[in-house]
Amino acid sequence: MTTQGIGTNVVTQIAIVVKDIDKVSEAWSKVFGLPKPTPIIAGGEDANAVYRGKPTNAQAKLAFFNLGQVALELIEPLGGDSVWQEVLDQKGEGVHHIAFNIKGTDEVTATLAGHGIPMIQQGEYTGGMYTYVDGEPVLKVVLELLENF
Amino acid sequence: MTTQGIGTNVVTQIAIVVKDIDKVSEAWSKVFGLPKPTPIIAGGEDANAVYRGKPTNAQAKLAFFNLGQVALELIEPLGGDSVWQEVLDQKGEGVHHIAFNIKGTDEVTATLAGHGIPMIQQGEYTGGMYTYVDGEPVLKVVLELLENF
Repeated sequence: MTTQGIGTNVVTQIAIVVKDIDKVSEAWSKVFGLPKPTPIIAGGEDANAVYRGKPTNAQAKLAFFNLGQVALELIEPLGGDSVWQEVLDQKGEGVHHIAFNIKGTDEVTATLAGHGIPMIQQGEYTGGMYTYVDGEPVLKVVLELLENF
Repeated sequence: MTTQGIGTNVVTQIAIVVKDIDKVSEAWSKVFGLPKPTPIIAGGEDANAVYRGKPTNAQAKLAFFNLGQVALELIEPLGGDSVWQEVLDQKGEGVHHIAFNIKGTDEVTATLAGHGIPMIQQGEYTGGMYTYVDGEPVLKVVLELLENF
């Protein structure tokens, strides 16, 4: 881990926020000839999530498609305070973030904060934790940091 | 090539439209510890490009970063009618499209049109041709089809 970078440059997810995950999943499945995934529910109490400094139990439906090295992630926010709901309300449907698998979330988020890229949401999932950082002003896209334990 | 899919599901580029490619390149270089690329100029007369049914000589500066299987492409429109200028004017900076390397542009674009995903811009580059299709209504993102000859 250098103090400069985030320890990787390999993007692992492209995420799109949508209003109707069933409809958009159906379209991706048809257009790319890929199996239609069954959405999973993310978030809720078990995620111990923090959104802009405050605890949140916000949930979202997620569906993943295999695009090679990268997974396409569709996200349908289910209400509550979250980056997912925020972007849907403010900008509508579209690409929300790109994700990187990292090690040392605290160190990496501190490094990014030093580059003017602050944390906006953090939470847990089975086997790991995720952190969204606001790369929009500097990199022109939100980043998600995924750390699997 | 199936009549259903586009013959591949491997994404090869994630493209972000920006106002100042030098500034944003500098940020990506610093944050990821990657070499800062020298931008290239794309478009112009040699591209024989068509934007929404009309010829265009629009140009853009492009810069590429290696994110593993995927290249991050930064695009600074230099004026003229193009999807790049259109999205910058209408939505501002941010992710514009994801790209796939395909074979048989005419067949693939016909297939996509059948899925409600029409062509919006097409042009040439040294050794190949590109086609943008408006995946926003259906897939929630614009796609670029790259065919190298």
